[in-house]
Amino acid sequence: MNFTIQNVLIPDENAYKSVDVQISDGIIAAIAPELDPVGTAVNGKNKLLLPGFVNAHTHSSEMWQRGIMSILPLELWLAELYDFAPLDIERVYLSALGTAVETLMSGGTTVVDHLVLIPDRELETIAAAVRAYREVGIRAFIAPLIQDQPLAAGIPSGETDEQVHESYFRPTEVTLELMQAAIEEFHKPEDGIYFALAPTGIQLCSDALFEGCVGLSNNYDLCRHSHLLETKAQQKLAQEKYGCTAVEHLNRLGYLNSRTSLAHCVWLTDSDIDILAENQSTVVHNPLSNLRLGSGIAPILKYRQAGVNISFGCDGASSNDSQDLLEAIKIGSILHNVTDADYQHWITPKQAVEMASLGGTKGLNLAEELGSLAVGKKADLVLYNLTDLSLLPRTDPIGLLVLGRPTNVVDSVWVNGKQIVDNNKVKNVNVDRLRQELFNRSQWETKRKSKTVAELEQHYRSIMNLKD
Amino acid sequence: MNFTIQNVLIPDENAYKSVDVQISDGIIAAIAPELDPVGTAVNGKNKLLLPGFVNAHTHSSEMWQRGIMSILPLELWLAELYDFAPLDIERVYLSALGTAVETLMSGGTTVVDHLVLIPDRELETIAAAVRAYREVGIRAFIAPLIQDQPLAAGIPSGETDEQVHESYFRPTEVTLELMQAAIEEFHKPEDGIYFALAPTGIQLCSDALFEGCVGLSNNYDLCRHSHLLETKAQQKLAQEKYGCTAVEHLNRLGYLNSRTSLAHCVWLTDSDIDILAENQSTVVHNPLSNLRLGSGIAPILKYRQAGVNISFGCDGASSNDSQDLLEAIKIGSILHNVTDADYQHWITPKQAVEMASLGGTKGLNLAEELGSLAVGKKADLVLYNLTDLSLLPRTDPIGLLVLGRPTNVVDSVWVNGKQIVDNNKVKNVNVDRLRQELFNRSQWETKRKSKTVAELEQHYRSIMNLKD
Repeated sequence: MNFTIQNVLIPDENAYKSVDVQISDGIIAAIAPELDPVGTAVNGKNKLLLPGFVNAHTHSSEMWQRGIMSILPLELWLAELYDFAPLDIERVYLSALGTAVETLMSGGTTVVDHLVLIPDRELETIAAAVRAYREVGIRAFIAPLIQDQPLAAGIPSGETDEQVHESYFRPTEVTLELMQAAIEEFHKPEDGIYFALAPTGIQLCSDALFEGCVGLSNNYDLCRHSHLLETKAQQKLAQEKYGCTAVEHLNRLGYLNSRTSLAHCVWLTDSDIDILAENQSTVVHNPLSNLRLGSGIAPILKYRQAGVNISFGCDGASSNDSQDLLEAIKIGSILHNVTDADYQHWITPKQAVEMASLGGTKGLNLAEELGSLAVGKKADLVLYNLTDLSLLPRTDPIGLLVLGRPTNVVDSVWVNGKQIVDNNKVKNVNVDRLRQELFNRSQWETKRKSKTVAELEQHYRSIMNLKD
Repeated sequence: MNFTIQNVLIPDENAYKSVDVQISDGIIAAIAPELDPVGTAVNGKNKLLLPGFVNAHTHSSEMWQRGIMSILPLELWLAELYDFAPLDIERVYLSALGTAVETLMSGGTTVVDHLVLIPDRELETIAAAVRAYREVGIRAFIAPLIQDQPLAAGIPSGETDEQVHESYFRPTEVTLELMQAAIEEFHKPEDGIYFALAPTGIQLCSDALFEGCVGLSNNYDLCRHSHLLETKAQQKLAQEKYGCTAVEHLNRLGYLNSRTSLAHCVWLTDSDIDILAENQSTVVHNPLSNLRLGSGIAPILKYRQAGVNISFGCDGASSNDSQDLLEAIKIGSILHNVTDADYQHWITPKQAVEMASLGGTKGLNLAEELGSLAVGKKADLVLYNLTDLSLLPRTDPIGLLVLGRPTNVVDSVWVNGKQIVDNNKVKNVNVDRLRQELFNRSQWETKRKSKTVAELEQHYRSIMNLKD
C-alpha cells in the first residue's frame, strides 16, 4: 500500500520541520514539504514521526512471572524463575503477543526475543512465538536461548580448581543440530522473521557451544546475541573459568563481530571496551533490569566515548517488569548523568532516540535498510500524537517523549510500510481477548518459596562476601 | 456521602484478602468480608484498594518548561529556567490543574507544591494554585518557594572569604510578612488546603529567613519544607557559608523537626543522617530529577537503616519531566539495589507503597489521620483496575503496580471520602479543555540559548573541577 503522511513534524539537525513523507512499496520514497500525495493521505498534523525503535533484548515468556519475582540478584532470581515457570505452547504464544503489543505501543517496531525454549518442544516453542509476531506484524528476531551447562555452573565456585558440574540434559552437538533445523524452518527475513544464534552467556555455555554458534552464524549470515557480564558474580566466574575476562575469551573464540549484540555489559574493563569497539559489536543496554536485579550501572558513557554502538532493551518482564521501551530509553539515558560529573558527556533526548532506532538496527546488521527517516529506507515508522496531556504543553517533542512519561501517545505504526497500529489500536490483535486469556491463565499470588533459591543462597552469600 | 467498596483486594501482612470497605462521613468505618452495605455500593471485584500516595515535592508551574530544558546539572539548569519561565496567573492555575490530574492518575491523593511565586503577585499566585487544587479536589500543601538571596549566591565561590552578593529584590522581613498574610488567607485544613513554610534551601536563604520560618511554623503549627543538599555544589557551598554541613547548621537554627520534610538529601554525611533521625525529619526522595540533573543517588537504604522517614516526590516537571508518581516510586525503589550488594536491604514493592502512603503522610504530620487502610482514618483511597493489560497476567498486584509500567489503571480516587476520579476520569476537570489550553499557550520549540547559563558556566566548570 502506498501512502503519504502529510504535514508531520520530523526532527531536523537541531530542530524540527513539518513535511510530507511518501511511502511506496514499503520504502520511504520522498520527504519534503507539500509533496503531491501518492496513495492514501494520512493526517500528520500535530504529530511527530520517528523511525521505529528496537526492543533489542527481551525474553517474552517472562511476562508470566512479572510482578511476582522476589527482589533478588540475578543468580538467585534465576533460581526462583526456574522453580516457577510452568510454560506451555499456548502461553509462549500469548506472552509473545503481549510483548509485541507493549513494544509497539511504546514506539518499537522490532523485537529481539531471547526466547526461553520448552525442553523437548523447542521447535514448537519457536513456532508459537513466530506465529504471534507474524500475527501482530512486528519485525522479530527469534534468538532461542541455549546453554549446555546446568544452572549451578553459573555461580562462581570460589575454588581455583576447574569445577565439574552434572552434565546438561542435552549434548552440545544436538543443540546445534536443533538450531540448524530451526534456522532452515524459521529464518525468513522477507517476512520480517529473522533467526539469531543466542547462547545465553559465558556462565552456562561451553566453548564448543559458542564455536558452534559462530559456525552457524557464519554459514547462514545470521546475527549472534548473548548476555554478557551482567553481574559481578559473572565477572568472578569468567576469571575462574578462563583466567581472563569474558570479553577476552569470547574474542579469542571469534564470537565478537559487527553482527554480535551483547545484553547488559555492566562489568567490562576499559580494555574489554576497546575490544568491543574494535569488533564493532553492540551493547544492548537494559537499565531497568540492571537496577531491579541490582546488577549495577553499565558504563554507557564510556561505551559512547569509545565508539561502541548501543541499543536499548526492556529485558524480560520478570526482571523489569514491563515492556515499555520509552521507559527503558528514559531511564537508560538519565541514569548515566550520575556516573560522570561532566554534563557535556550526558545523553540528550535526540541522541537517545538515535540509539534506540539506528543503534538498534546497527546491532542487527540492518542499519543500511532501517533505523532512520531517509529516502530509500524501509518504512518502519511510528507516528506519535503530540496532543495527549502527557506531551503538553508544546515544547520540544522529542524531549517530552524521552524525558516525560508518555501514555497512549502512539497513534500509528507501520512495519515495512504495512500499518499495524491505527488510532492507538493494534490492528490484528484482539487486545481484549488477549487480556482475558492472560487473566484466565493466572491467579493473584501471594507468597511462595523457591526451593532452588534456598539451596543456592548460602553459597551465593559466601562467594559474594555478604554477611550472614 | 457514604459508600461501601465490595469484594476488593487489599494487602494483608504478606498476602492479600478480599474484603468490603465501608466509608461513612469521609472516614473508613469498617473493613471486613461481607459487610452489610452502607450507602452506595461500589464494585471492587478485580480491583486493588490502596491508601492514596503523596507527591511530596513538586513545583507545579515547571510544567510549562517540561521536555525542553537542556541536559544540565542543577545550578546551570536553574539558570536556564530563570531565563525562560514567563509565568502569568492563568498559567499557574493551568499547570497546578495539570499537576493535580497527573498526580491523581498515578495514585496520588496529596500534592506538596513548592510553588514558584510571580514577583509582586505572590498572593495571586497562591490563590491561582489553590483554586486549581480545590477544583480538582486533591489534598494540597501550598509551600510557597521563598528565598532572600540572588541566584548567583547558590554556586560556591571557591573563595574562603565571606561573599557579598547583590541584595535580593525584597527584604527578608517583608517576605515573612507576606507569608503570614498568606497563612491567614489560605491555610484551611478542613478544606484540604494546607500552608507550609518553604524556604528554598541553604543555597539561597539567610539564617534570618530560616529562623523567621521556624517562628511562623511554630506559631501556626505548620509544616516546613525545603530542598536539602541536592548537589555536590551545595555541599561545597555549605562548607563555605557555614564551615560545617548544611544539616548541622539547620539543626542549630532549630529548623529540623518532625514536621520538616526535606527534598533530595543526596549529599548527607553519616552523622547528618543521624541528625535527621534524631529530629524525626522526613527525606523526600525525587529519584528521577536526581538522575536527570545528575545530582547523584540519594543514600535511601542508609536512611531506612537509620530509621529516617522517607517519602516520594516527582519534583517539578522541568527536571523529571512528568508527574507520574508510580514512575517515581518504581525508580526510587529499584535504583538503590545497585548501591548495596546485600539484597536483604533492598526495598520491596510493599515497602515502597508504605513509603509513598504512610511515609508521605508522616512527613506532613498527618500520619494519625491518613496514609493507611485502617478503621478511623480519613478515606483518601485509590482503586486500581487489575484487568488492564499492563497489570496482567495476574501475579502479585502490588508487584505489578510498583515494578511494572501501569497505564490508565486508576479506576477511582476518593479524597476525604469524596470521589474525584470515577472510571479513570477526573470528575471535576474537563481534561480536553485543559489540553486545549496548554496547547494554545505553547509552541513547539526547537533551540534557544540561555544568557544566564552562558554567564555562569565557566565559573561552575572551574569550581566543579571540570575540564575546559
